[in-house]
Amino acid sequence: MIAVVLAGGVGERFWPSSRRRRPKQLLDLTGRGSMLQLTLDRLDGLASREDTFVMTFAEQRDAVLAELCGRVPDANVVGEPEIRNTAPSIGLAAVIARRTRGDQTMLVLPADHLVGAAERFREQVRAGLRYLAGADDLVTFGIVPTRPETGYGYIRIGEERWNEGRDRVFAAAGFVEKPSPERARELVAAGCLWNSGMFMWRSGAVLDGMARHAPELAAVLAPIEAAVGTPQFGGVLKREYPRAPSVSIDYGLMEKARNVAVMRADFAWNDVGSWEFVRDAGTPDADGNVTVGEHVVIDGKDNTVVAPGRLVGMIGVEGLVVVDGGDAILVCRRDRVQDIKQIVAELKRRGRGDLV
Amino acid sequence: MIAVVLAGGVGERFWPSSRRRRPKQLLDLTGRGSMLQLTLDRLDGLASREDTFVMTFAEQRDAVLAELCGRVPDANVVGEPEIRNTAPSIGLAAVIARRTRGDQTMLVLPADHLVGAAERFREQVRAGLRYLAGADDLVTFGIVPTRPETGYGYIRIGEERWNEGRDRVFAAAGFVEKPSPERARELVAAGCLWNSGMFMWRSGAVLDGMARHAPELAAVLAPIEAAVGTPQFGGVLKREYPRAPSVSIDYGLMEKARNVAVMRADFAWNDVGSWEFVRDAGTPDADGNVTVGEHVVIDGKDNTVVAPGRLVGMIGVEGLVVVDGGDAILVCRRDRVQDIKQIVAELKRRGRGDLV
Repeated sequence: MIAVVLAGGVGERFWPSSRRRRPKQLLDLTGRGSMLQLTLDRLDGLASREDTFVMTFAEQRDAVLAELCGRVPDANVVGEPEIRNTAPSIGLAAVIARRTRGDQTMLVLPADHLVGAAERFREQVRAGLRYLAGADDLVTFGIVPTRPETGYGYIRIGEERWNEGRDRVFAAAGFVEKPSPERARELVAAGCLWNSGMFMWRSGAVLDGMARHAPELAAVLAPIEAAVGTPQFGGVLKREYPRAPSVSIDYGLMEKARNVAVMRADFAWNDVGSWEFVRDAGTPDADGNVTVGEHVVIDGKDNTVVAPGRLVGMIGVEGLVVVDGGDAILVCRRDRVQDIKQIVAELKRRGRGDLV
Repeated sequence: MIAVVLAGGVGERFWPSSRRRRPKQLLDLTGRGSMLQLTLDRLDGLASREDTFVMTFAEQRDAVLAELCGRVPDANVVGEPEIRNTAPSIGLAAVIARRTRGDQTMLVLPADHLVGAAERFREQVRAGLRYLAGADDLVTFGIVPTRPETGYGYIRIGEERWNEGRDRVFAAAGFVEKPSPERARELVAAGCLWNSGMFMWRSGAVLDGMARHAPELAAVLAPIEAAVGTPQFGGVLKREYPRAPSVSIDYGLMEKARNVAVMRADFAWNDVGSWEFVRDAGTPDADGNVTVGEHVVIDGKDNTVVAPGRLVGMIGVEGLVVVDGGDAILVCRRDRVQDIKQIVAELKRRGRGDLV
């Protein structure tokens, strides 16, 4: 099996820790290693290092190589010339994989997700391999919800297609965007699953799907595939890739294709979409404060503090997230974490490239 | 004239910037120099460097000497063996001054106050000298209030004793502790003045007052005065000074003495008693935020940010004070700044002497 790790994000929502050249996936947000290293740990025994590809943004490639420390061959770390979305990145990985390894099964994992039990994750990937031996579907992992989360998309499931005890595959009956709180409760009650952004398919199958449902992208990928393994590859990639439409794999392919199946995934999972993830990964104190690092909180409630290297003293504050990012500090209301991008935008406007 | 600068405070209310060995008076809280340097600037033309004494705590003396950089002779920087209150510190200064310089007029200034217009301050000190040429009073500076401040003590004024146009001296008719908001409004309306903690008197006059109203303290000071200028001085000071009662000059002397006069002082003044002073010293933006350093505030109101060396990004927060103290960060509701001492106490309890 081929593994593709998507490590090209910028992670503006994780400012001030995440920066353009030190993105979220390279940060140790849990004290257990960087997100990228944890993702590779998860692949142990599933894909060999030679068959593992890491897709990243060209400007971040050196930082990714330094973080990988030879864990994946340098040639398998692909620097995308421009930041696009997941569909172009996955398409690029698929053409490289098909051209160099043949039309094999390919597991796609974002580098910035947290998975609770790696062994259960691996069991379900192996189940997916068995399912794909008899089907040519585009398989997406649908996580069994643990709460009516409004920050995730949901997948409606249709008829069951395959069943090996705990491991079950269903037809995908529809995708639902991030819902309102009320709608989220309905979706959970109706047995919908969280749309995780983790996939399995033959490289040929996903490229066939793109040819049909994302022809603009397929047109960009064709000359790149032809150049794989030739001295022209770098130049062709640099010329063609920026022309790819910036579209997500969900919108560009999964919501349109007919052969989409859902592996019902029952491992703990978090997409690490905002600083709120710290509350999932940590344990709140009696007042609801979750802290990374040593801190003093006096009459403080429901705060999140991420400052492993510096002591934060808090008095009388409630519902804040405080993050020490070295040369910058964030103090934000917890219900406003989606607006952290505004700080990054403002810093760009001021020409403070050193801080973004 | 002899000048005595009281520079022995710890400034726990200014944690995390102020530490036991790097106290408030050595900090540059305004971007214009340390509080101690600003205080010495204010004495330019009033007292020679040889006639300027700096009273500090023995543990802080090295830091004070380093900050002074020879601006005052080392011998004039007196390290008190234990932290007491203002009465022992002023008494010690008075016995040293009387013994080495004779019974001259002595100006006492805390090192941690801000004064707006230094020239007006100097005019009023010179007026005080002229007044004291014809009177043997204990003169305190009473500041004309600009608002019904509840954080200051007030002085009721009695009959006018002296008048040189803008410079007027009154009998002190009583001292009022920090009042409630309503009481503060009444006091301001009644023409009361802020009790500044700045004084002028003959060294002999203040020591006479202590002999009468603070005999315990006078008993401690007598053997110290006898040892001034002898090789035994250091040993006597170390043995006797810790026996001094920890009492303020207001409570120990000014509220009891009959010969207290008030110089009506009309310069801008702030006792820098808490981080709230930053709001007096700075200019709020349209949303009421006062910031020291470059910061990004999105939908934030009435916050105080003191972080000259690091960028703070804030979203959706109101009424906070955020301070970057290097290895520690404070996030505190503005109406709770009096509780910052609790953080210092907690850090001491945890044995984190490095952070207090």
